[in-house]
Parts: sequence; C-alpha cells; structure tokens
Amino acid sequence: MNSSFAIAADAVRPVDDGAARAAAEHHDRLTKPRGSLGAVEALGGRLAAIARISPPPVPEPVTVAVFAGDHGVVAEGVTPWPQEVTAQMVANFCAGGAAVNVLARHCGAAVVVVDVGVATDIPIESDTLLRRRVRNGTGDLAREPAMTAAECRAALDIGAQVAADAVAGGARLLVTGDMGIGNTTPSAALIAALTATPAPEVTGRGTGIDDATFARKTAVVEQALSRLPTAAPAETVLAELGGLEIAALTGFVVGAAAAGVPVVVDGVISLAAAVVADALVPAVRGYLIAGHRSTEPGASVALAHLGLDPVVDLGLRLGEGTGAVLAVPIVQAAAKILREMATFDGAGVTDKDGA
Amino acid sequence: MNSSFAIAADAVRPVDDGAARAAAEHHDRLTKPRGSLGAVEALGGRLAAIARISPPPVPEPVTVAVFAGDHGVVAEGVTPWPQEVTAQMVANFCAGGAAVNVLARHCGAAVVVVDVGVATDIPIESDTLLRRRVRNGTGDLAREPAMTAAECRAALDIGAQVAADAVAGGARLLVTGDMGIGNTTPSAALIAALTATPAPEVTGRGTGIDDATFARKTAVVEQALSRLPTAAPAETVLAELGGLEIAALTGFVVGAAAAGVPVVVDGVISLAAAVVADALVPAVRGYLIAGHRSTEPGASVALAHLGLDPVVDLGLRLGEGTGAVLAVPIVQAAAKILREMATFDGAGVTDKDGA
Repeated sequence: MNSSFAIAADAVRPVDDGAARAAAEHHDRLTKPRGSLGAVEALGGRLAAIARISPPPVPEPVTVAVFAGDHGVVAEGVTPWPQEVTAQMVANFCAGGAAVNVLARHCGAAVVVVDVGVATDIPIESDTLLRRRVRNGTGDLAREPAMTAAECRAALDIGAQVAADAVAGGARLLVTGDMGIGNTTPSAALIAALTATPAPEVTGRGTGIDDATFARKTAVVEQALSRLPTAAPAETVLAELGGLEIAALTGFVVGAAAAGVPVVVDGVISLAAAVVADALVPAVRGYLIAGHRSTEPGASVALAHLGLDPVVDLGLRLGEGTGAVLAVPIVQAAAKILREMATFDGAGVTDKDGA
Repeated sequence: MNSSFAIAADAVRPVDDGAARAAAEHHDRLTKPRGSLGAVEALGGRLAAIARISPPPVPEPVTVAVFAGDHGVVAEGVTPWPQEVTAQMVANFCAGGAAVNVLARHCGAAVVVVDVGVATDIPIESDTLLRRRVRNGTGDLAREPAMTAAECRAALDIGAQVAADAVAGGARLLVTGDMGIGNTTPSAALIAALTATPAPEVTGRGTGIDDATFARKTAVVEQALSRLPTAAPAETVLAELGGLEIAALTGFVVGAAAAGVPVVVDGVISLAAAVVADALVPAVRGYLIAGHRSTEPGASVALAHLGLDPVVDLGLRLGEGTGAVLAVPIVQAAAKILREMATFDGAGVTDKDGA
C-alpha cells in the first residue's frame, strides 16, 4: 500500500543544476554589474533549478498551509500559554484575523488551515479549515513517545496530500505555517537530535518565557533526547520527539518537492520539519527556500545544517508562516528579474566586461 | 526668495512620538505574543509616527524617483565603467528594462527618472524622463568643487520639487533611486566628511573594482577630504564633494519629510544624501526608512550614523533604488498588521499577559 507520503518521497527528483547555471549566465547578460543583485540572483538560480528552466516562471499563485497541533509536553510547564489558545488561534486563522492572514492577503496568497492534532474542540464552521485530526495532541515527549509510528505516518500523509492538493488546485509556490502551543520544544528536540547539537544550543525562549521556564524547557529537551534509541532513524526520531503538525509539515515539504514546486520555509517549527524531510528524502533540500531567520536559536542551527540563507531577518518569533510569507514578494521578484530585465545587447548599454 | 528646498526645509515637523506609542500599545493588543513581529512592529510604529496617527494608513501609492548625474571624478580612474553608461541606463529606465523597473512594477510603484546632471546626450523621447539638467556632470571632486553653491542649491530645489509633485500626484510612499557612473566615490567622501570617518572605512568596491582601482579610489576620497575648509557647513560639503543627483536626492528626502510622507532610502548613494539631509534638517531623520544594507562599507557607516536598521540585507550593490523597492512590500505589510489584525478581545483568544 502506497501512502501519500511514500508516493511523494519516491517522486522527488534532484533539482536541475544546469538550469541554475543557465540562470547565472543570463544574470550576467542583464543590465547591471555582475553579481550586484546578491542574494536575489541566488534566489533566481534556485527557482530556475526547481523549475528546471531558465528563466523560471514567476512562482504564483501562492498557498500558505498552517498546520495546527497540540503538545503533551505542555504538562512540563514549558510555556505560559494555555493549551486552548491553539484552537482559538485556529478559529482566528479561519476568520482571517491573525498575522499570517494579513500578510497572506497582502501578497495575494491563499491560506489553508489544517487541524492535524489540536487537543480541544474547534467549534466553528469554515471552508478554510481542513479537519484531519490524527489524535487530540501528542504524548509528553519528555516521558513517552509523542506519537506512535502509525500516527506519525498518518500526519506525514496528511501533509503530503495537502501539498499535492494545493498544486493540483493551481498553486506554484507553497509556504509552511504552524500553530501549536508548546511547539518550540519538540522543534528544539528534533533539531538537536538530527543535527547532533546539544540541547542548550537549540532551545530558545519561544513566544517569550522567563529564566525558570527556560531552564525547565532545556532540561525537558535533554530528557527527551536521552530517551531516544541509539542511531534511531529519522522517522523514529520524528515520532518520538515531534508534533503532529511538525510531521504534517514534513510531509508537506516533501509533497512540494515531489510536485516540483518551491517551498518557502518559516521559522523554527517549519525548519525542524525541513530538517526531518531532508533526512528522510535528501533531494528535498534543493526545493527549500528559507523565508526568514527566526530569533529562536534552533532556527539558525537548522538553517546552517540545511545550508540555507534566509531571505529576511526581521527578528520575528511568531510562527504561523509569518516570516515566510513576508519573503514571498522577494522570491517572486527574483524570478521577474530573470524574466523581465533588459540585456546589455538588447538595451544598447555598454558592458565593461563585455566582448 | 524661497526656493523649493527652503520651503520644504521649513515645513518639516518632527514626527509624532505619541502616535508611535499608540501603535506599540495597539501591537500589544493584537493576537500574537508581544513583540513577536520584531522589526515589523518597529516599522509600524515608525509609520504611525510619520502619519501622526495609529493605526497608520497603508503607504501607497508608491513613487520611485531615480536621479541621474555624472561625475568629473571618473577622470581619476575610480571606475572601469565608461561615463556614457549613465545616459544609456537612463534610456533603459525610461524603456522599463532596468532592475528597478522590474522591481517597481512588481510592487505597483511608479518610476520617475530625473536627469539632474548627466554629462552626455540622452536622445530619447519619454514621458518618464524629467529633464532638469543643472550642468553636464560635476567637477572632479579630487581637485575642485564638484558644484558651485548655486548649482548645488538648484539640484536641491529639483529634488524637493520632485517629491512635492509626487505627493501632489497622490504618492504616499517615496523611494530614492540613483544612477551615475562613479557615484560611490562622492558618496564615500560625503559620508566620511559628515560622520567623521576615515576614508578607508567608507570607501568600497562599488560595482566591482580591482585592488589597484580600489587603492586609487581611497586616495581620491582622502584627497577630496583634504580640500575641505575646516568645519565647513553641510551644504558646502555637499557642493564640494557631492554629485548633482546626490544633491537632488537630498532635496527629495527633505521634500518627502516636508510632505509628511515616509521615504524608503536605498544604498550608499541615497544614504549619503540622507546623511546630508539629516545634517541640514535634523527632523528629517524620523521620516527615513532604510530599505536595505548595501555591501558598500559607507552604507553601514551611514546607517549607524542615522540610527537606522535596514529592512532587508540581501548583499545588493546595484543602486537605482533596487534595495529600497524590494523593501516596499514589507513596509506596507507593517501598516496592514496594525490595521487588519484581530485583537485578543475581538477574536476571543486568551492572552497570557492579559488582565
């Protein structure tokens, strides 16, 4: 039996480095000093490699998928926010009032919200909400597996299917988002485990916690890591330490790559999923665009591990996909530079390095 | 007799810090952890202070003004690019084929091109081009005043008038752009002089020059600085070391502030103009938004001097306004966050820090 995730994982092809080289050569013919658009040129090359053609198409329309789940680890006192805020924020997303909604409207992106594992009722009616709950929140990762292998696989499948459906519906750029009170803790644990980084270096203050909570959170991450079997495969690590929304995000990232579509990755939760996706399906890495550098230390560890330079660095620590959506206009601009700029020859501009 | 610049300089009011505080308080009521939108919240506060109301209006429509001029200092061999490229690029801007055109279209911004001092003919017909040439390029700032005081004042007036006209035409966000082969040299000299920074710390490689040219360029900046009278006022420094497009940009920045409109400042050339504007009319500083951090070292010196954090940092060194235009969607998003996000009370979301 082939699950959505397995089908997606099999379908991921390495990106086309030849198209990236063609983009770089084209950049050098455009009316600007060579290399003077810096990271925008690199982004254009990345888009060309993903699209397998230079110039690449402008990546639009855009779909932001916000995966929501709750976390048993909140019982350890790792966050001051009550768990019911996850469901409340899901309702807020569906009503269009959250930060990610505002930023998505601003750049013309659609938002889909997916309940993969919220713990409490979400008493709303909304076409925006996909009800795909695997269970009511995870187990407490400090003391027990967050999920069973089957639950983890179900969440991976959900994410892969959301990506496939979005692309089938026309989307040509996918953006990762998350909601889950407590979810910087599993993210830190996953990044620590899969990048072999000590817990204190990946654990952060999330939405803003005091010193005592921070010490407790770091200890929880260490305790969780100590539970892991030696040399556990990435999917086991995900089930042991992850979250249902993080597993779904992992599937979503792999699904985007399978569809040949770039995926803009948000902050530390999305990056934890990207690190897992990269471990499971290494060719996924070529499809990733880091939207921003979150203030969470685990985000920078994950970015370095994945070899990604974020598009913006605005000191965000909100999640939801906000940092990634803010980067979308710049990502699209990178394609337009390759598609629309005049060449030295075409514009009659003298090229100092020209023949 | 009141010139456009003098009228603008008299009209600049300090921004309204009370509106910025109101924006900060409003940010704290929105459905997100306090401060979690980082620099986006700071931008929103800045827009509120400029608009004198919270939430601020979304700053649109947008006009990018690209001021073009040539530089006698190219005779010193500070750049490998031939001077005729300035006029060729002006034609490229008017035809819509340059990077700034692509990026401006992408965010719905209008582009106006102003010849304040190009040295060679621009044999085109274009409604986009304002022909306001003061003289055919500046004098060689290494050896003589770049401009007379009267020429400098004429360029200041032109810039102030372009800003006033853009706002009269409906623009509510102005963006600075420049074109001028050799213009990183006067920019470095101005920043050095007005921030009391040694020449080697502000001089950069511009569009990309070799070590010998770089050494020559640094020496030229030092030579220019050594010509300055002791304690010369800023307008004298501008005339001695500047460029016609830099003087016009200075007037443009002051004109934006006079009209109560935020101005997104591009790289080192625009920042040199902003430093001059700040020296001439200190209240201008509150209206400045740094679009990006150029790779030119003088840009970082100017940003620090002005106390500005750039919106993006993408390794750009192109000028034209490209880095500033890339920042525009993020600037506008900052206003929309304040205008469109739900509050904790309104959305029924529990606030951990709430009453």
